[in-house]
Amino acid sequence: MDYQALLERIHSELEPRFGEGRVARYIPELANVSPEHFGMALVTTSGERYRVGDADVKFSIQSISKVFSLAIAMQLDGEAIWARCGREPSGNPFNSLVQLEVEAGIPRNPFINAGALVVTDAILSRLSDARGAVLDFIRRVSGDADIGFNEAVAASEAATGHRNAAMAHFLKSFGNLHNPAAAVLDAYFHHCAIEMSCVQVAEACLFLAARGRSPHVEEPVMSASETKYLNALMLTCGTYDAVGEFAFRVGLPAKSGVGGGIVATLPGHYSVCVWSPGLDAQGNSTLGSCALDLLTSESGVSIF
Amino acid sequence: MDYQALLERIHSELEPRFGEGRVARYIPELANVSPEHFGMALVTTSGERYRVGDADVKFSIQSISKVFSLAIAMQLDGEAIWARCGREPSGNPFNSLVQLEVEAGIPRNPFINAGALVVTDAILSRLSDARGAVLDFIRRVSGDADIGFNEAVAASEAATGHRNAAMAHFLKSFGNLHNPAAAVLDAYFHHCAIEMSCVQVAEACLFLAARGRSPHVEEPVMSASETKYLNALMLTCGTYDAVGEFAFRVGLPAKSGVGGGIVATLPGHYSVCVWSPGLDAQGNSTLGSCALDLLTSESGVSIF
Amino acid sequence: MDYQALLERIHSELEPRFGEGRVARYIPELANVSPEHFGMALVTTSGERYRVGDADVKFSIQSISKVFSLAIAMQLDGEAIWARCGREPSGNPFNSLVQLEVEAGIPRNPFINAGALVVTDAILSRLSDARGAVLDFIRRVSGDADIGFNEAVAASEAATGHRNAAMAHFLKSFGNLHNPAAAVLDAYFHHCAIEMSCVQVAEACLFLAARGRSPHVEEPVMSASETKYLNALMLTCGTYDAVGEFAFRVGLPAKSGVGGGIVATLPGHYSVCVWSPGLDAQGNSTLGSCALDLLTSESGVSIF
Amino acid sequence: MDYQALLERIHSELEPRFGEGRVARYIPELANVSPEHFGMALVTTSGERYRVGDADVKFSIQSISKVFSLAIAMQLDGEAIWARCGREPSGNPFNSLVQLEVEAGIPRNPFINAGALVVTDAILSRLSDARGAVLDFIRRVSGDADIGFNEAVAASEAATGHRNAAMAHFLKSFGNLHNPAAAVLDAYFHHCAIEMSCVQVAEACLFLAARGRSPHVEEPVMSASETKYLNALMLTCGTYDAVGEFAFRVGLPAKSGVGGGIVATLPGHYSVCVWSPGLDAQGNSTLGSCALDLLTSESGVSIF
Repeated sequence: MDYQALLERIHSELEPRFGEGRVARYIPELANVSPEHFGMALVTTSGERYRVGDADVKFSIQSISKVFSLAIAMQLDGEAIWARCGREPSGNPFNSLVQLEVEAGIPRNPFINAGALVVTDAILSRLSDARGAVLDFIRRVSGDADIGFNEAVAASEAATGHRNAAMAHFLKSFGNLHNPAAAVLDAYFHHCAIEMSCVQVAEACLFLAARGRSPHVEEPVMSASETKYLNALMLTCGTYDAVGEFAFRVGLPAKSGVGGGIVATLPGHYSVCVWSPGLDAQGNSTLGSCALDLLTSESGVSIF
Repeated sequence: MDYQALLERIHSELEPRFGEGRVARYIPELANVSPEHFGMALVTTSGERYRVGDADVKFSIQSISKVFSLAIAMQLDGEAIWARCGREPSGNPFNSLVQLEVEAGIPRNPFINAGALVVTDAILSRLSDARGAVLDFIRRVSGDADIGFNEAVAASEAATGHRNAAMAHFLKSFGNLHNPAAAVLDAYFHHCAIEMSCVQVAEACLFLAARGRSPHVEEPVMSASETKYLNALMLTCGTYDAVGEFAFRVGLPAKSGVGGGIVATLPGHYSVCVWSPGLDAQGNSTLGSCALDLLTSESGVSIF
Repeated sequence: MDYQALLERIHSELEPRFGEGRVARYIPELANVSPEHFGMALVTTSGERYRVGDADVKFSIQSISKVFSLAIAMQLDGEAIWARCGREPSGNPFNSLVQLEVEAGIPRNPFINAGALVVTDAILSRLSDARGAVLDFIRRVSGDADIGFNEAVAASEAATGHRNAAMAHFLKSFGNLHNPAAAVLDAYFHHCAIEMSCVQVAEACLFLAARGRSPHVEEPVMSASETKYLNALMLTCGTYDAVGEFAFRVGLPAKSGVGGGIVATLPGHYSVCVWSPGLDAQGNSTLGSCALDLLTSESGVSIF
Repeated sequence: MDYQALLERIHSELEPRFGEGRVARYIPELANVSPEHFGMALVTTSGERYRVGDADVKFSIQSISKVFSLAIAMQLDGEAIWARCGREPSGNPFNSLVQLEVEAGIPRNPFINAGALVVTDAILSRLSDARGAVLDFIRRVSGDADIGFNEAVAASEAATGHRNAAMAHFLKSFGNLHNPAAAVLDAYFHHCAIEMSCVQVAEACLFLAARGRSPHVEEPVMSASETKYLNALMLTCGTYDAVGEFAFRVGLPAKSGVGGGIVATLPGHYSVCVWSPGLDAQGNSTLGSCALDLLTSESGVSIF
């Protein structure tokens, strides 16, 4: 498969639509990003690397960080993490408190905000520096030290994150947050505020397509079966309240963020990251979804 | 009507059941109150005063304070308070976040916790000392300066009040809390921690039975129509998720608290306060409800 | 109190607004009623009768019939009816299935549709002719034989009542409907299709203001305490999802119907019926609510 | 891969647990099936066939039929079917009416009961014999005419299916059922009452693993992209409220039925059907899920 030609074809096909969708506006740092950006990078398990457009421009990875924090919590806590967090699609918006109340403080899955707060809390109970742990993990698996927090984004998230604060206190009222709400929120907001390029994200997630192996790390990042678990969770829970639609159209495990990035994997073959800041009604990148749809349709290969 | 004889008959009839119900356990200060207490005081609009049992023992008024804070907010804000808070029974537990999400941050009524937080916030926006404002109001309308906060209770509420904190942050996320969550919570927890006896509560609420007039205050506390509004709200929203049952059995506007107190009014006739710490499944005093049921059944007079 | 003068003042004051609100449109028989109608009748416990406007024009009583069917079921089943139906305001639209699912087939109260279906089923289990039972009761307590079903309305309700049919089958799935769904629905639709004038409705409901006595019936219709129960239920559950607002503004136990009628009682004093077909967003007659608001405000007397 | 040896190993490993789980009890025909049955059949895209245990015993396919009826509706209606039915996991029990109310009569997906009723209605609008259409399709794609309805099961479903009846009327109230509720329910109950063996089901679903081609049909059953869509829907919506868990553990698109059958596909490789009547709390076959878990774990191949 000539992926370079395919990426370029996708880029050309979508170029007239650059700017589509609605950039996230809840903090100025995201609102000020130009909606015209479009980048895409693909890394295969055999070591080929392809890129197109703004693939080297950094963006706020936001909820894509949930993949990395979960990977760490699974390593630290093993099965125990699943006693505190479910594995089912929520059928509700990512920041809903309703389901949390009905289900007595056990978040539906680790990719909605409530679940990510529990995951962050679990890391914090094991490692004093939960912020740093996620950043270090990302640097290690991507083989790239030039990745960091955008402190202005983290500060803005904290200043406006009343709903996340509500969620943290709510989890605490159910006994499902063991550290102080403020400490968990601080780490969580920093995870969301990590900045990476498409190339860096695709590189960092290659282990998900490679049965847990990263070319940048000697030992396996995770076991093959843990990798299967993470991919399954991404497919059923990774794209907010549009997982069915996304599986239907794209057919790849994926995780999106409100910064406009989406990472996806074709297990055994490649990891891919696309970035375009305009979002659809469900909070997924409009052109990002289209690009991945084109990728699987035109290559004729998805997991299904 | 010989109310003294009636109160004594109620006391005797319920005496074998003293201790029934479940004392609130979420903070030690409430859990340690003896469930055997029972007191009742009734004040008529013509100035007669009746009491029985532990009518002079102070207890934590808890949600009964919501009547006083609403009275103040209605004076300060007039109709404007109803743009931020509804007037309908919730059909849900008093501390539910579900309804708040569905209804976009407008609490159903001022007597559920979310509504009382909004009311407290409204007071705080007008008066720097929201704690003191409620205490002063109570002292004034009861003509009794010997009423104060139990600081240990307030501190315990703050230490364990994760769900109320969640609610405050959630309201803030909808823009329906104008002051810092911490300041609103501090005032709210202090209102709940006010201690009064049955005699003091009945005295303080007499204006609700007397078209807004208190014998201890020269000018009207509220207008006759505002008094009607407050009584109507107590009837439809004052006893948590048991308002229908309470109206059915007792037939008086009432407000209960998890300290085991209930205040009720028969407009034009009397205000009455009963206290017995054991609660039923809905959070209302078990014997308190029975006592008021007996009061209206045996006197043959209710609002219906 | 000169009620005749007051009714005429209310009529004059509202005349410029005749036609306000939205006439129920779900069946042609209701949609074709002129929105300009306005009638009001008041009957006192001492036997005075007042009327104004279209007080003698018949309209479809719709949900006002729920008061009569409940009165009958309370007579037939006593306390047992409350094992199958709650007594709490629903906090949800009158035809919601959500709450029914959450609460496992026990309707919140007898004045939402699901509750009225259970009440009708209870009557049907005791009397073969549940339709006739309600009509006979109404004729008896109003002392007026000139009351009947509008068969066209009943047929239209049946033809379009898919949601009520859903509710009946749903109740059956929980075992809370003992007769065939079709039989219960047929009786229920006929109850809704009874036609009465304001004068007839006020007359028929006088027993609710008179401790259970009707001037047209020798024995008591109900006991004084059962009358208290019915009034309490009307106050907390009688006006759909606007009971708090209605209690707040009007301050009388009341039951409304989508035909635009509202019946209300001031226990010990009077029963009153107002009719104006235009409805507000909650399904209560817009001008009917205003008229009752004026009645209690200008007379200065409500239950509060 | 020696699938025959693997199936036999799975059979041996699970044999001590035969009888686990709870057989569906809502109709006698299902309740009377012995919980000890266990069968499994696997068919590869290259034409190999494997079986173990009771693979030739017929069972009630129940909700597995939803795959076939959806396949037909997609052929008849194309994209139009998705205007009437969503493609998202529900996050709620398969027979919930709550979500249907919140989402105004558009079922979340075609594999919950409400969605299957809409799909059946769509078929009925195109073909007079909706029952026969599904049976014919199954016979054709499985190359096996010895498949039919169990009329006793269909009759029992009809007699006890009050909740499905509620759902059909509810859909009708939203205008999302075009044929009479009774006709749709009759066809739907017959689809559920089809009886097949594991061998027959695996054979019938082979086209889902083979880009739409069945060895028994000359032309493609569906296009490759439609096959991808169906597999994606099975993965995100096929196993009731356990799709996340199932994807996590098994990692294959699958559809289960309360008769204890589960069909799953590994696109490009095989279709497999397992049957064991005992169900878990979510309504999926307990040992069926274990068997598929073992199949993907021991073969080391899933879609992830």
